[in-house]
Amino acid sequence: MQQPKNFLFVMCDHLRWDFLSCYGHRVLRTPNIDWLAQNGVRFSHAFAQSSDTAASRASIYTGRTAFSHGVTGASIPVPLSEWTLGDYVRDVMRAAIIGRTDLATDRASLERIGLKQHQTRLNGIPESQNSAGFEPYEFASRRNGGGATQGGESEPEGYNAWLRSVGYPSDSPSRDYAQVTVGPDGELMDGAELRNAGFPARIREGHSETAFLTDRALDFIREAEDDRWFLHLSYSKPDAPFVVPAPFHTLYAEEKVRPAKRSLSERTDQHPVFAALSETETDAPLLEDEVRAIVMPTYMGLVRQLDYHLGRVFTFLRERDLLTQTMIVFTSNHGINLGDHWLGGHELFHDTSIRIPLIVLDPSEAGRAGRRRVEHRPVEAIDLVPTFLEALNLPLPQHRLEGRSLLPLIRGESTTDWSMVIGSEIDFSTQPVCSNLGLPARDARAFMLRTPKWKYIHYLGYRPQLFDLENDPDEFRDLGAEPGHSEVRSELHQALLERLLRRRGSVTSMAHH
Amino acid sequence: MQQPKNFLFVMCDHLRWDFLSCYGHRVLRTPNIDWLAQNGVRFSHAFAQSSDTAASRASIYTGRTAFSHGVTGASIPVPLSEWTLGDYVRDVMRAAIIGRTDLATDRASLERIGLKQHQTRLNGIPESQNSAGFEPYEFASRRNGGGATQGGESEPEGYNAWLRSVGYPSDSPSRDYAQVTVGPDGELMDGAELRNAGFPARIREGHSETAFLTDRALDFIREAEDDRWFLHLSYSKPDAPFVVPAPFHTLYAEEKVRPAKRSLSERTDQHPVFAALSETETDAPLLEDEVRAIVMPTYMGLVRQLDYHLGRVFTFLRERDLLTQTMIVFTSNHGINLGDHWLGGHELFHDTSIRIPLIVLDPSEAGRAGRRRVEHRPVEAIDLVPTFLEALNLPLPQHRLEGRSLLPLIRGESTTDWSMVIGSEIDFSTQPVCSNLGLPARDARAFMLRTPKWKYIHYLGYRPQLFDLENDPDEFRDLGAEPGHSEVRSELHQALLERLLRRRGSVTSMAHH
Repeated sequence: MQQPKNFLFVMCDHLRWDFLSCYGHRVLRTPNIDWLAQNGVRFSHAFAQSSDTAASRASIYTGRTAFSHGVTGASIPVPLSEWTLGDYVRDVMRAAIIGRTDLATDRASLERIGLKQHQTRLNGIPESQNSAGFEPYEFASRRNGGGATQGGESEPEGYNAWLRSVGYPSDSPSRDYAQVTVGPDGELMDGAELRNAGFPARIREGHSETAFLTDRALDFIREAEDDRWFLHLSYSKPDAPFVVPAPFHTLYAEEKVRPAKRSLSERTDQHPVFAALSETETDAPLLEDEVRAIVMPTYMGLVRQLDYHLGRVFTFLRERDLLTQTMIVFTSNHGINLGDHWLGGHELFHDTSIRIPLIVLDPSEAGRAGRRRVEHRPVEAIDLVPTFLEALNLPLPQHRLEGRSLLPLIRGESTTDWSMVIGSEIDFSTQPVCSNLGLPARDARAFMLRTPKWKYIHYLGYRPQLFDLENDPDEFRDLGAEPGHSEVRSELHQALLERLLRRRGSVTSMAHH
Repeated sequence: MQQPKNFLFVMCDHLRWDFLSCYGHRVLRTPNIDWLAQNGVRFSHAFAQSSDTAASRASIYTGRTAFSHGVTGASIPVPLSEWTLGDYVRDVMRAAIIGRTDLATDRASLERIGLKQHQTRLNGIPESQNSAGFEPYEFASRRNGGGATQGGESEPEGYNAWLRSVGYPSDSPSRDYAQVTVGPDGELMDGAELRNAGFPARIREGHSETAFLTDRALDFIREAEDDRWFLHLSYSKPDAPFVVPAPFHTLYAEEKVRPAKRSLSERTDQHPVFAALSETETDAPLLEDEVRAIVMPTYMGLVRQLDYHLGRVFTFLRERDLLTQTMIVFTSNHGINLGDHWLGGHELFHDTSIRIPLIVLDPSEAGRAGRRRVEHRPVEAIDLVPTFLEALNLPLPQHRLEGRSLLPLIRGESTTDWSMVIGSEIDFSTQPVCSNLGLPARDARAFMLRTPKWKYIHYLGYRPQLFDLENDPDEFRDLGAEPGHSEVRSELHQALLERLLRRRGSVTSMAHH
């Protein structure tokens, strides 16, 4: 086969790279994802373009860095002129999404060009924008598990309707059942509260959202029959609320959870932004051992559950003889600190936040040479769009795309000019840390460059951070102010400038690429 | 009056800052523009965001730098998510354009969001995009004077129809009459040929495009009566073709034309890009003294003609008592070398290319203190949108705008924190110089920073250029490779990085500004 017939692009949410057994986790078992890694190419050094969820997702879908597409925070609409993965793919095959994207529609620009809301609705515009250009086969644009604070837009209508049909009586069974835990005496508890995370969900495992999305994926593949398809299966787990149904809530006993990866050296001469962030941490409870002891087994249970359902998908593909025709890409939008580095969530640029799993199984002839391999060269989330397009023999719109196709690495071709520098960016202007520092919004930006040896972080108006990844792989010792490292910092500073000078700006014309 | 009632925003095309008597030209007389300067604020150091026409115009209309809006060359569509001046203004007053914008519509993005061409036409979308959000009162999107090479889109339909109605029999009288010159024996000549530029146009002065656009401006103001209005009067002159009707073709005799401002020192160790550009110069004939002797008087005649017609507008406003209610802004999109620096057109970053006239007359009470003054602090074209918005008491969308309102300067307020650094950018990937140098398109970029003392130009993959503007105001001596200036270059290099780090990326959300 010259080219994969079908594409299955699986993304998890908040799945840290090292919480999979194939990536070295010592307790958690993920046999199905491991199977994929054993048969495909496992990228040991893959990174998200941002530790912000919306920014990272927008980079994955547009193939562009965070400050290029501009979606640097939650609810920031994707500019109308940005093309997303489904836009490229849907012309040549059926391209559907099951799950979420976290994208929002640029309504102001639609109105600017004279399209009133009812006109856009007639054209199906908000959906196609939010769904990254994919057919919304089973789609809820925003966080499905965000609970009441997320507002109505986040309700997963399809999931709710199905839950009602199988017997959960509620306007929102996802809120009233799936996100509720049940205590030992049958008492109901808000699953969004971390202290309740250890109890099982008020729902049967087969009725969880992860199970439902997987069922829908099988529905889609069944329906597609012999047609060519591109399916983006975008799970909302293991993200909070940390609620997992039985039996997954009991698989990882408290004593097996490793202690938080943090050091007092991180709090010595702590970088001002890092320090302020620790102080304003909304997930601060995750720094407490008692809370971690409750949350970690659940987080791991959620990962284990994802693995179980991916096994169902792989089996289904195998039974239909589709495994040999389907390119499978498995990844996550970013990680989560869970108490490491004195942080709870995903912020800044520690590997715990921005390093992601990435496994690719390419069934084509060309892919044979590359299989059953670990690839150590660094890759970025923006590399995914060009990878898919090249695998589809579609033209690469180089005036927009800022990444590079991974196909040469996936297919084990000898490439000598692979740059070993990758980058990641954040805008923290809408975070409490910004006002806490008294920063003007426009200065609340940070830019990371990572080489195999160094991680360099540039802040506007603050000293940089620098970590020696060879001698300090846990990033405990910030060399950003060390006089002995001024030359390295200066070199990386120049490398950052070079990267910024090459941003793709002219998204509307092929002429400039 | 708290706020100007009306706004007249006049822009010329290819009008160099120093070809006006108020800016020090020793031969050319521009009494009406001088009158504006004497009564308003004349900015001695105003600069275009790019020496490329489309890039500079898009910056003027969006208030954003060239690599931020991405319109870095001719025919590159303005991204749908970019707001342009008229979009901001039209909600509070009638906002019309007379003349041209050089903008193109982002059709690919319209199609991506599911809008077929007939649907967009129903919504009037292409026009509103090309016209920078202004009502197309008398509008031709592209170069009106570009002749046959510009294709059908460039035809100024309104002007042509009017010419036919006053007796010029042709499908395109603008092409067949206005751009044709008449030799001493009545022979007709192509005005696009530089050697024909000295003869008068085959048209009466009152039938020239500059006269026509001025007439239409008066029509508009007359029609508007007591309504509030914002008129963007966007002339296509003194740009080529260098054809001017009698009597303006004879006003500046050959002997009064100053010699080209160029030095052999510019060709010593010439910067590789500058050298390659000189070699591929499409306007090379302008380097020859005989050709300059023909073209320069015509260029000056075109400026003089513009001044004459602006006088008509000012008189018209005065007679209707509108001068005291109208804020007038006069500027140009960029300059032109006309043989200076061994260059013909507008390229790179010599002041001859990027320095522009900018004169503002603010009739409000607040403006009184600032009038009759020359302002020496440096300003940029991106400052215009915020200036208009602040003068209108409209909110400043800081998440998009990259310039700063000039109102404090216009109104003579004491501002202590005015940055003296301005910037300009070019993408020359579609120019012959790019292939001539064997450059990949993505490396064909240059970035300029200008302080009162220094001009620093960064190229990708080449050494920088550096000029000492205090000791070498004519920019004859490139210090970009001088060992003695490495510290200054390094400082300006850092300043460039700082500017790039602060680009506005999140155009779709107010949250980040």
